[in-house]
Amino acid sequence: MKTDSTKPQVPKPEDLASDEPYKIGLFGYGCVGQGLYHLIDQLKHAGAEVVRIGIKDGKKSRDLTADRFTLDKTQILNDPTIQLVVEVIDDAAEAYRIVREALIAGRKVVSANKKMLAENLPELISLQHDFGGTLLYEAAVCGSIPVIRTIEDYYADEPLIRLSGILNGSSNYILSKVFSEGVAYSEALQSAQQLGFAETDPTLDVGGFDARYKLCLLAAHAFGVLVKPEQVLSAGIHGLNNADLEFARSQDKQLRLVATAERVGTELALFVMPQLLDAHQLLRGVENEFNAVVIEGSFSGPQFYRGKGAGSHPTASAVWADVKAAARSFSYGYEKLKTTLLQGITNDLYLPVYLRANETIHRHLTWEQVEHRSIDTVQGIIGLKQLVAHQKLLQEQKVFVALNGNLLRKDPISGVLQAHQSEVAELIPVLKNNVV
Amino acid sequence: MKTDSTKPQVPKPEDLASDEPYKIGLFGYGCVGQGLYHLIDQLKHAGAEVVRIGIKDGKKSRDLTADRFTLDKTQILNDPTIQLVVEVIDDAAEAYRIVREALIAGRKVVSANKKMLAENLPELISLQHDFGGTLLYEAAVCGSIPVIRTIEDYYADEPLIRLSGILNGSSNYILSKVFSEGVAYSEALQSAQQLGFAETDPTLDVGGFDARYKLCLLAAHAFGVLVKPEQVLSAGIHGLNNADLEFARSQDKQLRLVATAERVGTELALFVMPQLLDAHQLLRGVENEFNAVVIEGSFSGPQFYRGKGAGSHPTASAVWADVKAAARSFSYGYEKLKTTLLQGITNDLYLPVYLRANETIHRHLTWEQVEHRSIDTVQGIIGLKQLVAHQKLLQEQKVFVALNGNLLRKDPISGVLQAHQSEVAELIPVLKNNVV
Repeated sequence: MKTDSTKPQVPKPEDLASDEPYKIGLFGYGCVGQGLYHLIDQLKHAGAEVVRIGIKDGKKSRDLTADRFTLDKTQILNDPTIQLVVEVIDDAAEAYRIVREALIAGRKVVSANKKMLAENLPELISLQHDFGGTLLYEAAVCGSIPVIRTIEDYYADEPLIRLSGILNGSSNYILSKVFSEGVAYSEALQSAQQLGFAETDPTLDVGGFDARYKLCLLAAHAFGVLVKPEQVLSAGIHGLNNADLEFARSQDKQLRLVATAERVGTELALFVMPQLLDAHQLLRGVENEFNAVVIEGSFSGPQFYRGKGAGSHPTASAVWADVKAAARSFSYGYEKLKTTLLQGITNDLYLPVYLRANETIHRHLTWEQVEHRSIDTVQGIIGLKQLVAHQKLLQEQKVFVALNGNLLRKDPISGVLQAHQSEVAELIPVLKNNVV
Repeated sequence: MKTDSTKPQVPKPEDLASDEPYKIGLFGYGCVGQGLYHLIDQLKHAGAEVVRIGIKDGKKSRDLTADRFTLDKTQILNDPTIQLVVEVIDDAAEAYRIVREALIAGRKVVSANKKMLAENLPELISLQHDFGGTLLYEAAVCGSIPVIRTIEDYYADEPLIRLSGILNGSSNYILSKVFSEGVAYSEALQSAQQLGFAETDPTLDVGGFDARYKLCLLAAHAFGVLVKPEQVLSAGIHGLNNADLEFARSQDKQLRLVATAERVGTELALFVMPQLLDAHQLLRGVENEFNAVVIEGSFSGPQFYRGKGAGSHPTASAVWADVKAAARSFSYGYEKLKTTLLQGITNDLYLPVYLRANETIHRHLTWEQVEHRSIDTVQGIIGLKQLVAHQKLLQEQKVFVALNGNLLRKDPISGVLQAHQSEVAELIPVLKNNVV
């Protein structure tokens, strides 16, 4: 069947509408780099071309001829014909040097290295300002989900109430396999690595550090709060055992590693930890390498986005979206950094948790309330401050701790624990009439 | 706790960064118009201002002084100080006249009227081209979910395999109440109207027409296919009765009104109809006035977005996002219209359905396969062509028909029905090596 009309003339020239293809210098030819190369190769009509690929190991066998590669990064960084630098290497220190140098040269840069980005964000923002370059990094958070761009484009002015998400595809894959399919933890981890979901150092994934980097990036864009990763609690899944799984099942809950950003008065609380999810919670049911994020806006209400958070092509699709955006001179506005009323971060929250540890560790922890205690587990309420204060110990000893209920605060006068409620009223004055 | 660093200087000026507020002429002061007015009023720092509001009824009591309103549309359309026209009125014919005139004047326009947009899209695209104006309409599809912009920004080049969604908040609200809470249909409809979710004429919602307009808009952006709404099957929920609900429950399925776009070879199949959803389907569990959409890309994989699809503030938040985008001169690229390989639309698909109708109607329908027949219901396989051919009859008689399984096609040689599979291979040549 023919459609009704001949196609109308469309108003805008193509983004990459020059006769010459848009020239990309690519650093890294691992899982994401290869995905991007193939994607660009297959979307020839889109008008981009990878003209050179910077690598560190010239001896590895690769599926392209040697003349496409270079071991000398200046061959990309100093090439004036290259219009965009894309950095998808594993090594955060080297990624930092590349991105920094490119930005100082006023270049357009796309990066996917969340560790490097989260650790250096204030400087990277200033470099864009000072030298007129652009840095985009959609692929660094939630793989294929356009979460940073959506926050920038959609929620630049709207005060956000909270954000939470499954930000690490690798640990989510492991939890899915272990929890739903009964696969052993070590086997699930190995399988995640083979599929290219896991970082080279799996501690980044299963220790919650990767999710923490991503949460720090989201905190900047969604709340205008800049924070060093080490200021944020990160509790991982590497201490998980069968007793913990049994406990989750007995409560009919699902276990996921969740990153949370929550407004507490004029401050922001941030933490990454396993969470026991009820049937009604949106993040429940996000399986395997999928990521998901819930963004609660004061006008738009709760938004839920779910998509692949790892893998060659899904991640490359986000890099590609940045390539296109850079080509049409899009840059992040960092609007929330200019307008936020938030003063910084706080750990003044109380968490109902399930925690399993040995006796020595238990002796270090002060509880607000204990509901149930066994030989090695406690179910009760603990201050986020307590967990942050003992973060190093908890990480080293692979203590398993999971959020198991709603956030609490202490009444400033009576000291009584009560349900935490975001001060939406403070954000949005009561409307003059009753529009829904 | 103080964060680690003083804030860096951010690279970009604000979108609306002039000393003067960005001047908006607003048509319509109903549910969405009021929401937008209040949103802009509360986001004063964002730098926009509604300078005049065009209305058709001067006698209605309103919460603003009379001097803000005008009954004369030329006071907005001919005012050279107004930088953006926002149209959120109910009347599609009048909305068309306003938008057309504004575009011919080369203006920037934001509209939320899906009926008007879907019925006139080719012309509205051409007018942008010919007169240099801009038309944005995020709020016309899925309320608060930034679906059109995401497709434009993210999937402009990536071939999409399918798209499906719950696009009508009003009928979804009714189905939720009826199905999950046991409320009577008429009562649920009335409640949707009181909450401002339903159109003035509820047939637009419950007949599936509103979702069909939205599907047509999505088909243009996501697949580059322009289609007149009346070419697309629209089966609604207004014929639903208790026997249908019982049937759904007996199969442990959930009933939702779903709009589907599916690649079939080099053509696109489009239809709106109730669907019986399995536990594993992403659209299941989308309740009340929420909308949701699943977009399956060839690189990015399946993406799922869920957010409020109706209501004053959620819809206004999407209009506001368009205001901001217009202010920084964003316009839709309609990239897919230029590059798609799709030839048009097809109804060459076979659907497993549950259908209830009276004997007269049953006599009109030819089935491919009947699995179960009762006095008034048939469970079996029917051609989409059959349903389209009898669309008028089915609508008039409020026949209840629901998709109940996976799409099928006929083998072109043997004529045997078999599972429909999108030709992903045709879209994405096999990769040279096995990256995931």
